[in-house]
Amino acid sequence: MKQTDNLGALRHTAEHVLHTAMQNLYPKLKKAMGPATKDGYYFDFDLDEKISAADFPKIEAEMQKLINQNLPLKPENITVAEAKKIFTSNPYKLDWLEKITKREEKISIFRMGETDVDLCSGPHANSTGEIKAFKLLSVAGAYWHGDEKNKMLTRIYGTAFTNQKELDEYLAKLELAKINDHRKLGKELELFTISNQVGQGLILWLPKGNIIKEEIEAWAKQTESQWGYQRVTTPNIAKTELYKTSGHLPYYKNDMYPIMKGDKGEEYILKPMNCPHHHQIYAASPKSYKDLPLRLAEYGTCYRYEASGELFGMMRVRGFSQNDSHIYCTEDQAVKEFVDVMKLHQYYYKTLGITKYHLELALRDPKNKAKYHGNEAMWQKAEALMREAAKQVDIPMVTEIGSAAFYGPKIDFIIESSIGREFAISTNQVDLFMGERFKLKYTDKDGSDKTPVIIHRAPLGSHERFIGFLIEHFGANFPTWLTPVQVKILPITDKQNDYAAKILKELRANKVRAELDDRPESLGNKIREAQKAKVSYMLIIGQKEVDSTTVSIRNRSGKDFGQMTIKQFTDKITQEIYAKVL
Amino acid sequence: MKQTDNLGALRHTAEHVLHTAMQNLYPKLKKAMGPATKDGYYFDFDLDEKISAADFPKIEAEMQKLINQNLPLKPENITVAEAKKIFTSNPYKLDWLEKITKREEKISIFRMGETDVDLCSGPHANSTGEIKAFKLLSVAGAYWHGDEKNKMLTRIYGTAFTNQKELDEYLAKLELAKINDHRKLGKELELFTISNQVGQGLILWLPKGNIIKEEIEAWAKQTESQWGYQRVTTPNIAKTELYKTSGHLPYYKNDMYPIMKGDKGEEYILKPMNCPHHHQIYAASPKSYKDLPLRLAEYGTCYRYEASGELFGMMRVRGFSQNDSHIYCTEDQAVKEFVDVMKLHQYYYKTLGITKYHLELALRDPKNKAKYHGNEAMWQKAEALMREAAKQVDIPMVTEIGSAAFYGPKIDFIIESSIGREFAISTNQVDLFMGERFKLKYTDKDGSDKTPVIIHRAPLGSHERFIGFLIEHFGANFPTWLTPVQVKILPITDKQNDYAAKILKELRANKVRAELDDRPESLGNKIREAQKAKVSYMLIIGQKEVDSTTVSIRNRSGKDFGQMTIKQFTDKITQEIYAKVL
Repeated sequence: MKQTDNLGALRHTAEHVLHTAMQNLYPKLKKAMGPATKDGYYFDFDLDEKISAADFPKIEAEMQKLINQNLPLKPENITVAEAKKIFTSNPYKLDWLEKITKREEKISIFRMGETDVDLCSGPHANSTGEIKAFKLLSVAGAYWHGDEKNKMLTRIYGTAFTNQKELDEYLAKLELAKINDHRKLGKELELFTISNQVGQGLILWLPKGNIIKEEIEAWAKQTESQWGYQRVTTPNIAKTELYKTSGHLPYYKNDMYPIMKGDKGEEYILKPMNCPHHHQIYAASPKSYKDLPLRLAEYGTCYRYEASGELFGMMRVRGFSQNDSHIYCTEDQAVKEFVDVMKLHQYYYKTLGITKYHLELALRDPKNKAKYHGNEAMWQKAEALMREAAKQVDIPMVTEIGSAAFYGPKIDFIIESSIGREFAISTNQVDLFMGERFKLKYTDKDGSDKTPVIIHRAPLGSHERFIGFLIEHFGANFPTWLTPVQVKILPITDKQNDYAAKILKELRANKVRAELDDRPESLGNKIREAQKAKVSYMLIIGQKEVDSTTVSIRNRSGKDFGQMTIKQFTDKITQEIYAKVL
Repeated sequence: MKQTDNLGALRHTAEHVLHTAMQNLYPKLKKAMGPATKDGYYFDFDLDEKISAADFPKIEAEMQKLINQNLPLKPENITVAEAKKIFTSNPYKLDWLEKITKREEKISIFRMGETDVDLCSGPHANSTGEIKAFKLLSVAGAYWHGDEKNKMLTRIYGTAFTNQKELDEYLAKLELAKINDHRKLGKELELFTISNQVGQGLILWLPKGNIIKEEIEAWAKQTESQWGYQRVTTPNIAKTELYKTSGHLPYYKNDMYPIMKGDKGEEYILKPMNCPHHHQIYAASPKSYKDLPLRLAEYGTCYRYEASGELFGMMRVRGFSQNDSHIYCTEDQAVKEFVDVMKLHQYYYKTLGITKYHLELALRDPKNKAKYHGNEAMWQKAEALMREAAKQVDIPMVTEIGSAAFYGPKIDFIIESSIGREFAISTNQVDLFMGERFKLKYTDKDGSDKTPVIIHRAPLGSHERFIGFLIEHFGANFPTWLTPVQVKILPITDKQNDYAAKILKELRANKVRAELDDRPESLGNKIREAQKAKVSYMLIIGQKEVDSTTVSIRNRSGKDFGQMTIKQFTDKITQEIYAKVL
């Protein structure tokens, strides 16, 4: 998009400004690289001196000077020999030049003002004065070329905008993202943990996080039962043969955990997806057209051996439980089934207050068809069926070239959290390939054997990523039905403890997740802790409440609901839970 | 017990009678071996001729002749040289003689009547006339010494009793066991399947079986929540380090699936139990005495690489989901917690109509203490705590020497199915070892660090074994709350289809698992099929029912409940489901 391009050029320029400012302040500095990124830019350099965020004001002041000078940026094409001369004292630039020479590309440099020059192909702004708002964000270490065998360089992250308002909005969002970071909240609220002895990227759900997971799962099971799904359970492993049949082996091997090799030559592997297992269930008994559509669903736990550098809290993990299903249907049923799948997404997302999402249709890279299985007609038909279904629901769709599965195109749901971060949550497919591959059949009306179409879907993604998303989306202020501790009962003194215990029992009998804080702490402390723990409601009990057999109610954002009888409050909260009020 | 010994002697005698009868009928036969077993005896022999069950009447007639002759059985001690002379033409007996010589044991033979002799140390009955009732049961192949490299022999199974009544009872039980075999019923009712491409001993739960599993699991979760348990979820794998910490590696290695070896030396393994994972959750945050008892529960899916010859349907599997929990408590709390665990067992079993069970206290083999970890005092204390708890509940207990875990004694619940088969369902432990090993701590009242006692428990065993047991226990005539299809609606003609569909909707709205059979089949056929599928109730709908807005109700055993309004029936069945009526 144009705007991003302009912003990209602006940020590239800001990075050059940063480079020059740093060079002015630290003449011994050697720049390694400095690209624009999605949100800003970074700048990697080699310098003996240690740079910290404390140095940012000084650096930013120097940058501002260069911006004020409104220096022009001009591209220039030169020869390798000329470039080598210019960058003779910078081994990093010389390394780049080697690479560029090998790739037989042109050398392009940019000059900023009279004195500064950098190896860069742009685009850039016309002059430094176009930078109306910028900010340095953080500093970190980074290996040259990302390889830990190389030297550790210093990296400064920054951003830039065309006006101060956008920068302020961005910084506010960044601040919120920090506050709402699911890793931070997950630890503070004791939702999940990761153990070195268990392994990276493997989530252990603590009791409070597990409550959220069980609520989501129970909701999915109940909903999907109403939508005509049947549930199954399959093992977490299979013989490697199963993935040879599916074609995932050897193709997908690097994404899987290492093979378990038995003494007698048998090989097992952790399942990276549930599909082939579900196909075995389909194949367990003969099927007729009357059995279709057959919708097999499972929160199946899969394992993928993601690179350790890619792992990120619950968002990018190695073990995950997927809201998975495979719908086996006739070709005639496929569009309707796929439309229903999208409607199911809409129902789920609406219930959770997720309003911003779009579809991404992932197609083959037409330049690299050898990477994919199946024939041309199959690919065309699968795409046509999905496009037809997408047309029938009112969700915006963009097309992505090159990210299809090896056996067919797919449609991802990309959703945006309340703080503007985008997540690919759910992958869906109309699959005309695997039915054939697994020799799945059904007997049609005319007695002939046909191959079912298989629809893959996962509206709620995996528990790990989806709940990670929800933590950030809600800032852990979950709707009451998802809140681990829904009610905290706070007696003011120990004289109210007996009454408080009675209230606790009453609430629990109504399946409300309540806890009693009868420690000899001040009410103020108790309230602060309950708010920090993000409980939905606090019931404050003093002598007045005991005498009137009521409770005084406030919620975590401090709203006061006054006094209610326990019956009134129980009715209120159970209704709120039942209706999944946001 | 004396009676068993007598029966054993009788059966040993019957086996000799079988041998002699066979030798009379097939003079070329060479006997290999023939021991008494728990329920009877078997007889392995080498014979070119093929023997089938069709030959049994002839063989039994020959046996009866020998019994009628009331031949005396007499032991005799002889030298190896004498024995070798007697059995010179039988290589199997010569093989036995080699073994006996090596073990430096005495040779003992038995003579039956004047002519027959066998290498056997008894005990036997005094004479063949004591066999008042006997029966040959089946014929199969068996490798000599159970080794597939050796010759395949023929094996005949038989049994014998002191009277015809006991034999008849035994045969009836055997017949029922065949009818109720969970493998047979599991296939017929589409409860589970096993796939060669997934692997032996790995259960795939089909939709109907999965309903039973989910009902059991929901019940366990609800019950255990009321009993103060908190639920967690942990990965199916861990680094091998975790099991080195626990001491399971290398000790337990042969019982685990092969190790997954990554490129960078990291090693992962499928978890054979949930304990070490739960310990990681305990360790995720500091604990104080106020946090105890902490009861962490999980239906955790574990994997053990059982020998393929040991696998048996759902009863002995390689992947299983355990009704697991670990209770972390102080030493003072341990007896009460363990008593509560036993009471929980009692509640579960009573609800399911399981009345016959006992405890088996598994202790160390005192001759082989090197096999076990931990010091003497720890073993004594753990045993004392468990004995004290067992004393407080009224469940019979026997002691088993040598089957303790490597880190402490344990108590198994052994339950008997309605057809008299015994199953070890649940293993429980007071564990004074692993807390130390994993350096688990809590801060006690006085501020000192202490190690929690860990109670392991699994009242409902694993889904696989427990539901396998329930299938046989109930003969798949499950109580309504566990029945996959609770109601089948059977319109007599297609004129009643609309009314039937309305009833279906009504029942499903009340969360009753109902299906409609509106095929153009005769009512008789529909009823037979519904009975075979073991649905709880059939609602028969003719014009009479439509006109009176009622349904006619019968259950799977043919009992007629007459006509009811749909409201009356819904009330009846939902109450039955809610109360878990047997």
